Parts: sequence; C-alpha cells; structure tokens
Amino acid sequence: MSKIKVVENILHTNDEITSQNKRLLNEKGIYVINMMSSPGSGKTSLLERVILKLKDNVRIAVIEGDLYTTKDAERIEAQGVPVVQINTGGACHLDGKMIKGALDSLNLDNVDLLVIENVGNLVCPAAFELGEDIKITVLSTPEGNDKPLKYPRMFENSGAVILNKLDLLEFTNFNKVEFYQDINSLNAHAIIFETSCVREQDQGVEELCTWIRQQINNK
Amino acid sequence: MSKIKVVENILHTNDEITSQNKRLLNEKGIYVINMMSSPGSGKTSLLERVILKLKDNVRIAVIEGDLYTTKDAERIEAQGVPVVQINTGGACHLDGKMIKGALDSLNLDNVDLLVIENVGNLVCPAAFELGEDIKITVLSTPEGNDKPLKYPRMFENSGAVILNKLDLLEFTNFNKVEFYQDINSLNAHAIIFETSCVREQDQGVEELCTWIRQQINNK
Repeated sequence: MSKIKVVENILHTNDEITSQNKRLLNEKGIYVINMMSSPGSGKTSLLERVILKLKDNVRIAVIEGDLYTTKDAERIEAQGVPVVQINTGGACHLDGKMIKGALDSLNLDNVDLLVIENVGNLVCPAAFELGEDIKITVLSTPEGNDKPLKYPRMFENSGAVILNKLDLLEFTNFNKVEFYQDINSLNAHAIIFETSCVREQDQGVEELCTWIRQQINNK
Repeated sequence: MSKIKVVENILHTNDEITSQNKRLLNEKGIYVINMMSSPGSGKTSLLERVILKLKDNVRIAVIEGDLYTTKDAERIEAQGVPVVQINTGGACHLDGKMIKGALDSLNLDNVDLLVIENVGNLVCPAAFELGEDIKITVLSTPEGNDKPLKYPRMFENSGAVILNKLDLLEFTNFNKVEFYQDINSLNAHAIIFETSCVREQDQGVEELCTWIRQQINNK
C-alpha cells in the first residue's frame, strides 16, 4: 500500500463527514468561516475585535483548533460567545471528524455565524475541507510579502485574504505592491482586507465586519 | 490498516534512511543544523547573516526546503556557498529521503557545516529526524510569546532556540520573561539566543556564530 493511497483514503473519509456537517450547517442557515494562517499572524486578536463589533446583532459561535492548549479558547470565551476547543493532540490541522464532535456540543439553533479558527499552519489545513462557506487566510506584515507564492495553496483556495498587523508595516520590508500582484496572480477573485488590532485603535476591522454581515445576509 | 500504523511505517522508513545519512555525515565530520520555524520568522535572513560572518573560516553548504519555489535558495546562493533546493511539492516537512537526494548532489568532502532550512511550519517538521546534530527553532517576536507552549514539540526537541526580530519587540506585546519561563519549563537544556537582522546592523548574530564555531570544533 503506497503512501499516496492512504492519504486519499483519509481525505475521502474526511469529505464524507464534512458533507454531513455542511448539510447540517446549511439546514440551520449558519454562515461558516474557516480562518487559517501561520502561528502568530494574529487570528485570535482579529477574531476578538470582530466579535466585539458583531456580537450585539449577530449570534456568533467559535470552534478553536489548537494542538494542546486552551489559550485561544479562553480569550474568545472572555468575549461572551459560545466556544468549543478542539485539541488535535499534536496533529497539524482540523478535519471533518473533529468538527462533527464540536458541532455536537454547540446549540446550532442559536447561531448565525460560526468561525472555525484552524491550527496555526500555512501548509496542511489548506488540504482539509471543514464544511465552511469561505476560507479566509490571514497574513501579517512581519511574515513577509513572499509568503503567498511560497505557500500558494492556502491563498488560492481562500475567498478572502486579510493582511494583518498593518501597524508593523513601516518597520518591515513588506512590499504591498508585490503582495497585491501575487494574490491577484494566484486568486484574482479573493477580496483583500488590511487590518490592525493594536490595543488603542483598530484599523480595517469595521470594513471586514461590514463584509461579513453581507455574507451572512446573502446566505 | 489504521492511520496510526501507516504513520509508524513512514517514520520507520524515514529513520532508516536518516541513519544512513547520519553515518555518511559523521564520516565526513560535518556538523549539521536542522533549522525550523513558522513561515516568516526570518530563518533565511538569519542564515544570510551567519554565512556572511562564518564563510571565510568555515566551509558551509545549505539545503533549502520549500514547497514549490527557489526564492530562499536564490538568496543563499547569492552568499557564495553551495546550496541545494528541495521542493516538497506541497508536503509540509523535509524527510530523510529528500535529504539523501540533496546530499548526493553536494561535494561533502568540502563541507564543515551543513545547514538544513526546513519548510516553514511550526508543527510537522518536529516529527522527522533528518540526521542533524542539532535542531534549532527560530521564533520571532511578532509571533507572540505564547507559541512555545502552543507548539511544544519543536521547542522540546531543540538544542537551541533563537528569538529573532528583536528590533520589533518594542512594537509588540511579546513578554520575554514568560518566554524564558516557558522555554525553561519545556526544555531546560536549550541555549537561547536573541537576534535581529535589520539591514543597518544586526544583533546577537556574532554570539550565535561563536557558539556555532564551538559546536563545529567539538564534533
């Protein structure tokens, strides 16, 4: 039995469970975001800001993927929305079976928006569908503008790309012109947001939230 | 056949090839560093600085791991040292077989130090031995000080940890006290370096190079 066949089997099983999850989420009318990035791009900080701006009008639930800890889930819980922690036990991505377990412990009748924060990893999560309506990839300016071409699959498959940590842009050699060119060459349909989540003031989060509200309404 | 058994088989095969690689590298007296981190922590920039400081007295070769591109290898080649690019074709880590192929195309009689720059990924590369003498994990300040506890395996297995992008420390909420506590709790024997590679001046790279020279001499 070759390595490749095994991978196909795993993905096939994942697709079956994911299809069931997707049917359930569609029946409930829930808009689902699969949020992916490298470790440390600021996914959780961004999500905290989005929840703060949306939670009065949108019923939000969050699934947090982490290898071992509950650090991110604790931060999200402090925002006052339901959160389920998936600990992968060292595995490098979330899959359909893990999501099924998490959905079973959420009251889906009270959810308009489900955000799945994937394991911090710019490679593996791109290969696993989770039943989401959209994949959003977050890249932060200190990571460098060469990352979309170096890790293309995640950017190719994303409906939206968020350039985060704009506040650090001036201290890095991040080239925004090249970044836009590269995203456009990989995925001309992706909508791009620029954000910053520093404590005193955020930037671009309102635009992101307006767009998320539209996506929820259009579902 | 369960998933777990397959993973064991892959790792078993990897270990066999890696043992052969390690014997060859030991025969040649080459000190081997497996350099790992998230995408965008600054591995390549750091390596450029290290090469610049060491290359007059140390014969260096580099193996560059990337999913598809040769961007990093081109940067290293510009430093005037032999470099081999491994493109994993989307795979999330380097393994023994890939390293064997790369070693076959290097003249190992003219090498004192071999640096393997792994695929940017804080999860998967930690599980694959490459025949190295030491694993070095690089973390950059914008990624956040919570990363060692969130991605422990890589930090547990590393003989050295490099905290890079010190120049951005003041603009982030990175907590150095917690970082040192966490590394100490995961891996009390790891030596920690603090570095910065901004264009005008670097920081900590001389100390890192002094230590690498000692490691080479002690082999």
